[in-house]
Amino acid sequence: MPANRITHPRAAHGADHGLFTLGEPVTAWTVSTALPVTYEVAFTPQVLSPANPALAQAGGHPGRRLVVVDSHVHELFGDRIHGYFEARGLEHRICVLPAHEQVKTMDSVFRVAEQMDRFGISRRGEPVIAMGGGVLMDVVGLACSLYRRSTPFVRVPTTLIGLVDAGVGAKTGVNFGPHKNRLGTYHPATATLLDPSFLATLDPRHLSNGLAEILKIALIKDRRLFDLLEQRGEALIEQRFQGPAAGGEVLVRAVHGMLQELQPNLWEHRLERSMDYGHSFSPTVEMRALPELLHGEAVCVDMALTTVLAQRRGLVEPGQRDRILALMRTLRLPLWHPLMEPETLGDALTDTIRHRDGRQRLPLPVGIGGGCFADDLTADELGDSADELRELACVTQ
Amino acid sequence: MPANRITHPRAAHGADHGLFTLGEPVTAWTVSTALPVTYEVAFTPQVLSPANPALAQAGGHPGRRLVVVDSHVHELFGDRIHGYFEARGLEHRICVLPAHEQVKTMDSVFRVAEQMDRFGISRRGEPVIAMGGGVLMDVVGLACSLYRRSTPFVRVPTTLIGLVDAGVGAKTGVNFGPHKNRLGTYHPATATLLDPSFLATLDPRHLSNGLAEILKIALIKDRRLFDLLEQRGEALIEQRFQGPAAGGEVLVRAVHGMLQELQPNLWEHRLERSMDYGHSFSPTVEMRALPELLHGEAVCVDMALTTVLAQRRGLVEPGQRDRILALMRTLRLPLWHPLMEPETLGDALTDTIRHRDGRQRLPLPVGIGGGCFADDLTADELGDSADELRELACVTQ
Repeated sequence: MPANRITHPRAAHGADHGLFTLGEPVTAWTVSTALPVTYEVAFTPQVLSPANPALAQAGGHPGRRLVVVDSHVHELFGDRIHGYFEARGLEHRICVLPAHEQVKTMDSVFRVAEQMDRFGISRRGEPVIAMGGGVLMDVVGLACSLYRRSTPFVRVPTTLIGLVDAGVGAKTGVNFGPHKNRLGTYHPATATLLDPSFLATLDPRHLSNGLAEILKIALIKDRRLFDLLEQRGEALIEQRFQGPAAGGEVLVRAVHGMLQELQPNLWEHRLERSMDYGHSFSPTVEMRALPELLHGEAVCVDMALTTVLAQRRGLVEPGQRDRILALMRTLRLPLWHPLMEPETLGDALTDTIRHRDGRQRLPLPVGIGGGCFADDLTADELGDSADELRELACVTQ
Repeated sequence: MPANRITHPRAAHGADHGLFTLGEPVTAWTVSTALPVTYEVAFTPQVLSPANPALAQAGGHPGRRLVVVDSHVHELFGDRIHGYFEARGLEHRICVLPAHEQVKTMDSVFRVAEQMDRFGISRRGEPVIAMGGGVLMDVVGLACSLYRRSTPFVRVPTTLIGLVDAGVGAKTGVNFGPHKNRLGTYHPATATLLDPSFLATLDPRHLSNGLAEILKIALIKDRRLFDLLEQRGEALIEQRFQGPAAGGEVLVRAVHGMLQELQPNLWEHRLERSMDYGHSFSPTVEMRALPELLHGEAVCVDMALTTVLAQRRGLVEPGQRDRILALMRTLRLPLWHPLMEPETLGDALTDTIRHRDGRQRLPLPVGIGGGCFADDLTADELGDSADELRELACVTQ
């Protein structure tokens, strides 16, 4: 345990009760402590089956549940969600919330907080359940983080990107002004239940959206995952992760890779983060292109750009670059966007440098399955890489 | 150190690389880690003297500073604040913010976040400086907590309540709907600099407001502090903590007592909190009375009520009760408010029970300088205590 203590740097002696009667009075204190955090992420097939107690028990407390459900998910699963809690005999209220990038704002957080108020939620014993994609979970997570300075919650991701990305980490957040996720907290759900059967309802574009974050993990740290995506990516989209193409290993490797990177650096004290790969230019591109690009699509054009950049530096071989771009195409992801021009890329880099406390700390791929960080990117190199990518994307599209 | 680890409860074996090739595949993970927190609170006389490097060095980074100043403080000290940073050669921008209970809202947090955006603040190396009372520090603290999921800040409290209460803990927050501090975080300032010379500019009512929180600490855990307040309280108000009445020991004991209680329970995992004394009924009374009652005034009527209640239970002797009520009067604090009627008190208790996760956990004084917690308060006992207090307050006023 880190020492939990108050120390008195200017005290002439240590005993608390003597402080005011002997020696020099204390006039300065150092408070040192640590917040322990534990959370669980578990594949949970058939999460809405009344026979499965996992969701009712998640978060560890008996009693009522406020269930915040993405409006699209509610259309598809509202009856089953309601039926689940009825069958388990759990008093509950369902709150339906529209959730997409353009309403990823504090106003949506306020709507959730108002529902928590109306429900009269207890401070620790009634975890909120968040069912939906990344936006829904980020918004509900922030509301729970703020409400009475932290209320527990449980996540049930229903999209691929939610399952492998937003659902497994500790971050909450909303957009603010022109900036993506500018306001947020670190507040992991007590438990996240991953049920791949939700993916059967996704359209191909939203499957590709999630595959972009899986590809990120493959590119920067997991060569076997890259091979799996090459072999099965197309079938996974066709079968929506339900068929014999065995999406299981892909999902498990993606979640495991993500948690391996997050766990030792949950509060981002270290700003060289391999999970930031694809997230250096994409936040600005995604926000300026709203609502055109999905998050994973913006991440993919960022990865395409930095793959070309890495090849120009000799970090990636030309053949590897071509395999990477070809796999992006197989996964039905965009390689290029017109906003990849000098002004937007320059603004994006400026903001990213602020976000990384004054340095670029730019994750770049090394071969396939490895990565490094660069601090010496120039505007010229960035512009040349974007030009080359545009040509490659057009030629081979 | 707590173990930093990912564990695999369902794995047949432990080695990461074998997970996908041997035995049962991993399908569940437990993430365990801990957030270390260290912060400093130091008496710093002459904090705005250009010869004093403390404020310029607080937070530990060279470079620019965004300084958010309460508008009233800015009227009085704007030139000196600007002059200080000029003299220290520190690039800075001053942002003036109105700060009182009625604008303690997310809109004020947004104003600070917009200023941080415009300043182009770096993520870790440019701590925001918050100068003002409790409301200003709570609002700026929340903005810093949310901005890029945490930006460091430094507090310079300018009121007595800021100096002994809001300035020394870890809480940030704003009011939401009819509820006090309903949205907030735990995000202590890296450093808090306490300069009692600001108190020379306070009117007596705001000195009394701060004395209420000092009295709370005296009543629940520090009999010597109670004696000091009896002996010197009146002079401290007259001399605004500047004269020979030696406010130093009062301030130091108050801060020390507060930190002793906060340090082992910074995130309020334990909900029996002696520092909640005076804060069981006052949040609802304060919000319903807005803008009539200051925070400390609402806390004092709560303490008067629970003192009478404790006497009726035999926890406090009648003579002690009379000394306590007399000291409240000496400190020019109210003992009674018309909102202390059954409906408001009942609503307040209902919300406080939710805040304390389903139990009353009501701090009560035991004699002078001691405390206990009760879970068995009834509406009748509460009503009778309020009736008795009303009579006592009228008779002896």
